[in-house]
Amino acid sequence: MITAVYNINGQKLKYYFEQSIKGVDSYNSRAKTIIITDENINKHYADFLKDRITIVLPAGEATKSFATIENIINQLITLKVTKDFLIVGFGGGVVTDITGFVASIYMRGLPFAFMPTSLLAMVDAALGGKNGVNMQLQKNSIGTIQQPKWIIFDRTMLYTLPQQEWVNGFAEIIKYGIILDKRLFELLEQHSLQDFQDKHYLTSKILYICTHIKTLIVEQDEKDNGHRKLLNFGHTIGHAIEKIESLPHGFAISKGMVAALKISEEISGLSTDDKNKAIAILEKFGLPINIDFDKEKIFEILTLDKKRTADTIHYITVNEIGKGNIENLPLVQLKDLFEQIL
Amino acid sequence: MITAVYNINGQKLKYYFEQSIKGVDSYNSRAKTIIITDENINKHYADFLKDRITIVLPAGEATKSFATIENIINQLITLKVTKDFLIVGFGGGVVTDITGFVASIYMRGLPFAFMPTSLLAMVDAALGGKNGVNMQLQKNSIGTIQQPKWIIFDRTMLYTLPQQEWVNGFAEIIKYGIILDKRLFELLEQHSLQDFQDKHYLTSKILYICTHIKTLIVEQDEKDNGHRKLLNFGHTIGHAIEKIESLPHGFAISKGMVAALKISEEISGLSTDDKNKAIAILEKFGLPINIDFDKEKIFEILTLDKKRTADTIHYITVNEIGKGNIENLPLVQLKDLFEQIL
Repeated sequence: MITAVYNINGQKLKYYFEQSIKGVDSYNSRAKTIIITDENINKHYADFLKDRITIVLPAGEATKSFATIENIINQLITLKVTKDFLIVGFGGGVVTDITGFVASIYMRGLPFAFMPTSLLAMVDAALGGKNGVNMQLQKNSIGTIQQPKWIIFDRTMLYTLPQQEWVNGFAEIIKYGIILDKRLFELLEQHSLQDFQDKHYLTSKILYICTHIKTLIVEQDEKDNGHRKLLNFGHTIGHAIEKIESLPHGFAISKGMVAALKISEEISGLSTDDKNKAIAILEKFGLPINIDFDKEKIFEILTLDKKRTADTIHYITVNEIGKGNIENLPLVQLKDLFEQIL
Repeated sequence: MITAVYNINGQKLKYYFEQSIKGVDSYNSRAKTIIITDENINKHYADFLKDRITIVLPAGEATKSFATIENIINQLITLKVTKDFLIVGFGGGVVTDITGFVASIYMRGLPFAFMPTSLLAMVDAALGGKNGVNMQLQKNSIGTIQQPKWIIFDRTMLYTLPQQEWVNGFAEIIKYGIILDKRLFELLEQHSLQDFQDKHYLTSKILYICTHIKTLIVEQDEKDNGHRKLLNFGHTIGHAIEKIESLPHGFAISKGMVAALKISEEISGLSTDDKNKAIAILEKFGLPINIDFDKEKIFEILTLDKKRTADTIHYITVNEIGKGNIENLPLVQLKDLFEQIL
């Protein structure tokens, strides 16, 4: 096992790599551990979960609702869960988002931990402490920012994932390369998706690098008032695309990144060569690069985006590969760019 | 105006005394201020509230529900409230509890402030950052601990309160004297409730002293892992009484304090003289001191209390007037005390 320890605003956060999910028993007594998971994981890991106190949610984004929170809280009360329990989210981003939120409001906050099961959750969704659920009127409109005590990254779980789940995760991995780490970007240029799936040292390497990149930023700016906004690269337009097309998250933000790369070329001095390299990597890893979305509708949605402050929007561009940039764009300028560049 | 500034885990918290609620306009632009209040306050302060963006809740504890949170969040989305808004809770403890919770989860946290309208809210409920709502199965079972940016203590509002509201607030004031401040206790011995209502320098004095006592403790132990537990004096049994008798909060914890004083005499060396003095003060301020509650039922409720950890309970006693004490009592011992002392 390999352990990384971070300190986020005075709270310790531990990452366990090369560790099986069975390791959970060494961190907390089974009688005081509540596992929140979804139906798919519950079926797939039935052996592991038997004899554990488990709350099972329906799989899928629709579960990230206010009603689910009410339901889980009532189960926790009925199970007489008190402050000396640990709540463990075992699943993909939907499960970790819900678990983090429930744990941060039940009894005004219980300790929690994650065992992410998808590549996307391991390199992004389970990291950084942002949690929450959707309201019908707006996605992720309620939540908190609270860090787990630890995360187990059980790499072996990844090898049972369908191909699309790998591709989905690589969208965020490529994002880190483009905005923050040129060497990561070059690693992605040197290897195929198949390489990362076959060569286990490469899978491990990508987990160490990506968790480290994101967590360093969260250490510096947990509350998302500055530097952390860089991680929204591709997400402003990507989230809007997710709302109107039924695409997996990584696929939607891939399109958002292509749009952001084109806008970066126009306003942030990104060279055409770097832009093309970045788009080529997205394509190489099986992600969509066409941006034939309904521009007017997308623009309308993102002006309602929660990142909007007054008449400007924080929009992330890149100056060169590995160097992201936070622009405070007037909405009118963004509208022009939509019409002229995209 | 008199200002007190505190620092709670790196966040500034300002108290404004001798300040009218109209002062709100000097702290935030009216167009970016959402006021959450209840029907009674809305009627009483119609002039002040006109031309302000206001969310009005039904008055009363029943409003502290999960459904209210959903309703408010949907209104905030519809009003296009973004992170540059300030949410101001204007009302008693129910309003401030709801406002703090909504503001700490909407968009993962917006700044908020309070304008408490009752004595109880000014000296206790609006202070300390604990917020939340009730689930049908358990009171205050969800919430967070988040501090407001500022609180306006408009003393003049108190003089329109009915007598019962004064008495209700004095339960917490007397509590501070008993567990933390002998000089406050002596001040309460020297003056009648009528004095505090008639002599405005005494009203002011009590606000400065009580807000200071509580906030100093919160500065030291915001997350309620140690010293802050002292503030639960009278509340373990008091909350249980609130559940089965329909009594105002202060009246219920007055009974809880009488029980705690008797238990303190038995296990914490409280002198009979100090015990009698403390009970006499409660009586002098019009609070109930009989403890003829259903012991068995109360004990059953408090074993389900969220303060319970395993088989012991944090129970607050006093050694002498002004010196509270956190006991980690086995539940079996508490049960014996219930049967023998109460």
